[in-house]
Amino acid sequence: MATETVGFVGLGIMGGPMAENLLDAGYDVVGHNRSDESVEELEASGGEGATSPKEVAERSDVVITCLPDSPVVEEIVRGDEGVLDGLEEGMVVVDMSTISPTVTEDLAEAIAERGAAMLDAPISGGEEGAIEGTLSIMVGGDESVFEDCRELFEVMGSTVTHCGPNGAGQTTKACNQIVVAAQMVGVSEALVFAHQAGADLEAVVEAISGGAAGCWTLDNRAPNMIQGQFDPGFFASYQYKDLRIATDAGEAFGSPMPQTSVAHELYKAMETTGRGRDDNSGVMQIIEDLAGDEARVD
Amino acid sequence: MATETVGFVGLGIMGGPMAENLLDAGYDVVGHNRSDESVEELEASGGEGATSPKEVAERSDVVITCLPDSPVVEEIVRGDEGVLDGLEEGMVVVDMSTISPTVTEDLAEAIAERGAAMLDAPISGGEEGAIEGTLSIMVGGDESVFEDCRELFEVMGSTVTHCGPNGAGQTTKACNQIVVAAQMVGVSEALVFAHQAGADLEAVVEAISGGAAGCWTLDNRAPNMIQGQFDPGFFASYQYKDLRIATDAGEAFGSPMPQTSVAHELYKAMETTGRGRDDNSGVMQIIEDLAGDEARVD
Repeated sequence: MATETVGFVGLGIMGGPMAENLLDAGYDVVGHNRSDESVEELEASGGEGATSPKEVAERSDVVITCLPDSPVVEEIVRGDEGVLDGLEEGMVVVDMSTISPTVTEDLAEAIAERGAAMLDAPISGGEEGAIEGTLSIMVGGDESVFEDCRELFEVMGSTVTHCGPNGAGQTTKACNQIVVAAQMVGVSEALVFAHQAGADLEAVVEAISGGAAGCWTLDNRAPNMIQGQFDPGFFASYQYKDLRIATDAGEAFGSPMPQTSVAHELYKAMETTGRGRDDNSGVMQIIEDLAGDEARVD
Repeated sequence: MATETVGFVGLGIMGGPMAENLLDAGYDVVGHNRSDESVEELEASGGEGATSPKEVAERSDVVITCLPDSPVVEEIVRGDEGVLDGLEEGMVVVDMSTISPTVTEDLAEAIAERGAAMLDAPISGGEEGAIEGTLSIMVGGDESVFEDCRELFEVMGSTVTHCGPNGAGQTTKACNQIVVAAQMVGVSEALVFAHQAGADLEAVVEAISGGAAGCWTLDNRAPNMIQGQFDPGFFASYQYKDLRIATDAGEAFGSPMPQTSVAHELYKAMETTGRGRDDNSGVMQIIEDLAGDEARVD
């Protein structure tokens, strides 16, 4: 399949620069977004605007969606003037949003009924990764469809992995968020404890980072955490949403998540205490609230 | 202080090779152990044996203890014919066991009453690190006493960090074990979920290892975990004991550990199900028990 025109629905913080990278790589891009401003930016860069998801699908070979959550993806695909209404046989819908693996499986079925194929391809790597084309892309769906879209993915990401059938990309993203949260909360509990026990927080981080406790959070977030700096980064409210996807999927598949369910509750507290726009490492503040004490270097 | 004779109580899997490394570096070593066999090995390598901890202290400048748990360290230091009975003013006791930070603080006081000083200096890096002299050593106690002993530490370890006052070494070790357990359990929950959701486990590990979920457990244990290989490594029963130290210290200092307390319970289940001698990554089996399913590559 030679993809020439890529449809793109959802030109936000992530989708906007991803669509720009596709334009730069020589693809024609037809875009749609809830607000017009992002579409105008796309047009200024050489892309074209469309008035509905249906029109995007009608004018494209591959339709990419990059949207906030499961209900929005459902609406954009299945709703009035939605992607489904504009699909033709042999087309591919690539959902790069982070949504539920089970919703993804249902959407893939609906798309298959139109003779088209779906890939779920959620991303990690943040706004910077989207701009620089260095995202990690976790893909679920038919392997041959994945191979057809590989070139497209390699424009947007530097780590592209096929993880299994439809839903497996979302499952992998959920696994990523489970392990990230485990680290964030574990490091938070360790640092608050170390502070209350009278240890030197910088020395603790230095001493344990090189061994079996070594992790991305200790290397990249702990130095800020002990200064009380929680600028994002990755919003705590997104971490919360993603853990909700994980624990809901755990319900659906019967997968036990005793530790992740605790992390989920702690990120819920980030929302309820008005800290959703802090970095996800800011969950340390919830442990501090529980301790009645802050863990900071002097 | 020029240390010439080092006393060593506890010539086990860790203490044995550590004492050998001190001999190789030119120190005189006087050793004591519950079983005579290890003392005979030390003598064969050029060390000398002593019949009690008291005698070790009487014949040494610095006394190192490397013992299984808090009660044994208490007994060796405070008991009949114990280290305290043989101490002279100006000597140093270095406890390299992994024990409670609060027990450590009490011992440091008792030792100070004799005019001697104590350092807590627990280690990580396993038997291999002990043999090769590449341990990570986390030290609590007076900074000038730490500096006096630095050469000694650098014979046994490659990462030597002063973490604060007496107890801070144990606190740091507990922090290490908190973060290790968070990773081990988080990766376990993620992999069991991924298997049940139908994803390719090897692809999941590959896809998430390079980003914000990246950690020692994913790099060094996940490939074995998805094969069901849980040979130690680091015994699950030691991880359990160390998490108990952490949660007990959390009680003492008022430090909240909602996530770590879950990990503690899961490692307790490793004991109750007869898996204490598996690697600590074997905690995945507890999640599998809860799921009624095993997460293995085909």
